[in-house]
Amino acid sequence: MSLAEEWRAARPPTAGVHLDSAACSRQSFAAVDAAVAHARHEAEVGGYVAAEAAAPALRAGRAVVAALTGFAAGDVDFTTGATHALDVVLGDWRGGKKVACLPGEYGPNLAVMARHGFHTVPLPADGSGRLDPDAAGRALADDPPALVHLTILGSHRGTVQPVAALSAICRKHGIPLIVDAAQAFAHLDCADTGADVLYSTSRKWAAGPRGVGLLVARPGLLTDQVRAGLADAEVNVAAQLGLSVALGEHVAAGPQRIRAELAAVGSRTRTALDDVPGWRVVEAVDEPSAITTLTPPAGVDPLDVRARLIAEHGIVTTFAGVGRAPGEMAGPALRVSPHVDVTDDELDTLAAALTAVA
Amino acid sequence: MSLAEEWRAARPPTAGVHLDSAACSRQSFAAVDAAVAHARHEAEVGGYVAAEAAAPALRAGRAVVAALTGFAAGDVDFTTGATHALDVVLGDWRGGKKVACLPGEYGPNLAVMARHGFHTVPLPADGSGRLDPDAAGRALADDPPALVHLTILGSHRGTVQPVAALSAICRKHGIPLIVDAAQAFAHLDCADTGADVLYSTSRKWAAGPRGVGLLVARPGLLTDQVRAGLADAEVNVAAQLGLSVALGEHVAAGPQRIRAELAAVGSRTRTALDDVPGWRVVEAVDEPSAITTLTPPAGVDPLDVRARLIAEHGIVTTFAGVGRAPGEMAGPALRVSPHVDVTDDELDTLAAALTAVA
Repeated sequence: MSLAEEWRAARPPTAGVHLDSAACSRQSFAAVDAAVAHARHEAEVGGYVAAEAAAPALRAGRAVVAALTGFAAGDVDFTTGATHALDVVLGDWRGGKKVACLPGEYGPNLAVMARHGFHTVPLPADGSGRLDPDAAGRALADDPPALVHLTILGSHRGTVQPVAALSAICRKHGIPLIVDAAQAFAHLDCADTGADVLYSTSRKWAAGPRGVGLLVARPGLLTDQVRAGLADAEVNVAAQLGLSVALGEHVAAGPQRIRAELAAVGSRTRTALDDVPGWRVVEAVDEPSAITTLTPPAGVDPLDVRARLIAEHGIVTTFAGVGRAPGEMAGPALRVSPHVDVTDDELDTLAAALTAVA
Repeated sequence: MSLAEEWRAARPPTAGVHLDSAACSRQSFAAVDAAVAHARHEAEVGGYVAAEAAAPALRAGRAVVAALTGFAAGDVDFTTGATHALDVVLGDWRGGKKVACLPGEYGPNLAVMARHGFHTVPLPADGSGRLDPDAAGRALADDPPALVHLTILGSHRGTVQPVAALSAICRKHGIPLIVDAAQAFAHLDCADTGADVLYSTSRKWAAGPRGVGLLVARPGLLTDQVRAGLADAEVNVAAQLGLSVALGEHVAAGPQRIRAELAAVGSRTRTALDDVPGWRVVEAVDEPSAITTLTPPAGVDPLDVRARLIAEHGIVTTFAGVGRAPGEMAGPALRVSPHVDVTDDELDTLAAALTAVA
């Protein structure tokens, strides 16, 4: 079977066309079944006895996270989501409050930074919002911030950031690098980021359940108190188990194979949408991510288009408002983010629907 | 059918004897099925489209919470647990940092207070740890704190606190009252607490899934920003839906009927355990809660007893270490917290097992 066939066979059939993995992928039968089996086991033996029984499976899940991010299994904690993870990291930080990040930094991340009293300074970027490593090297040498934060792949744009180049600079200057891999994890290669902290979420490209996140940090960066707090926090163990099963499936399918296919999906998507009248594909056709964003024709609101695509065509995409990247987006966009199982027919259906709708 | 028969028929059979609802109750088939149906719906139509479809059911869940706590449905937010709820409330508080609470306050709550820079002053209590309302009235008049916090029913002891008397005093002095109802919600009558904020959890007496909590606050007490943050946070919608179904079942069974039965369960438990050699039941036999705690014979460690009860007798209870109430507990205890379906045979089995084990 092809990867697309494997992926499709492992899941309930879609009711329409699902092009929204950057928001929330489709869980597999196995991931959902693991969660429900655990919930029933809790009812049979008690929630805490069941949690002990699930511990090895959860350790296996953390080991996969470690392997995919280049950390050790003991460096991995579960959170309730990516934003929660950043909140934990910044809340625990005892150093200076100046953080460097790209102009296109994710809006909700900026809100977390502000809430913890951080002020941001810009990392240099080119016209497409991509980090300029040479200029960044100079900027960080001239006026080093306390932290650098990089979102490897944005929520608002499919541009892949050169994280390894940035981490080399940060290491040289002794500045800890925090990496948001919400869109990058289980999508791009995250094994050699060189980050000191990396965080992500379950529900996007890893296709795990909602309400679970990942926080990976090199030893010593988080206090023992905060790590113990994460370990002791009340959590939905069933969901953590669902993620662990999804990660096992990811490894079984082959992370490299999935990455290559997702890059090809991005190219296919941008090619299919290139000629839709009035809409402009933002990314270069061969940008190696499966996130494609489109700016609308004049006078067309992507929020309305997203709703009509669902209601009239059964096609699920994302409305990306400027709040997602307030320092970079000039206006709202429509985001298209298929997983490995997307067909050319589905992409053509979207192109036709977009033409019809706006 | 009796309430006990209804409760048992609605759930998977126990693998042993489950006497641990104060830690985590047993979910019903309906609650688990609602969560799994939602997870599959997410895979079919997308996570965010499915969440919109679930919105009315979640609103119904919040309406039940409102009815059970004497608030309006619009005052209710979901969190990931009770401790998370307190963290949100204290993190949002802009007033003074002196909080009055009982000597027997829950240890993890004290840790949250300390983390947010609060210092505690004691509310007067009698020898059993129960609030002395008259003395509290004088203390709060003489030296009013910025906040009062009361855990209506502790994690370490089945004593029911006189919350209405305390809220009347707080109202008189204009001091906001925060109520921890983690053990009280869906167990005791919480409709007339007079609290300004009440929080609880899903997994205990309401028998919902793990990893969900409740935060109820009178309008204006929480900032709009914090409430919006809760509404926008990444969550496991399936689990919130499971809780909403469990709350519907609670209402269908009759909250008053459940409360009366749980009070009777407490009496039956204490009566059954009264003669176990060396163990001492802490609560008066007719204390109207289903939480019973036992102090061990000299030289016996309840942590070990809890493990042996599970391993050798298939009986699930809780080890209650002094960290649960560091200002009150002189030593660790064993907690027994059956739900409405406990049989006299099961209680006799526990009594015999306790006699055999220690």
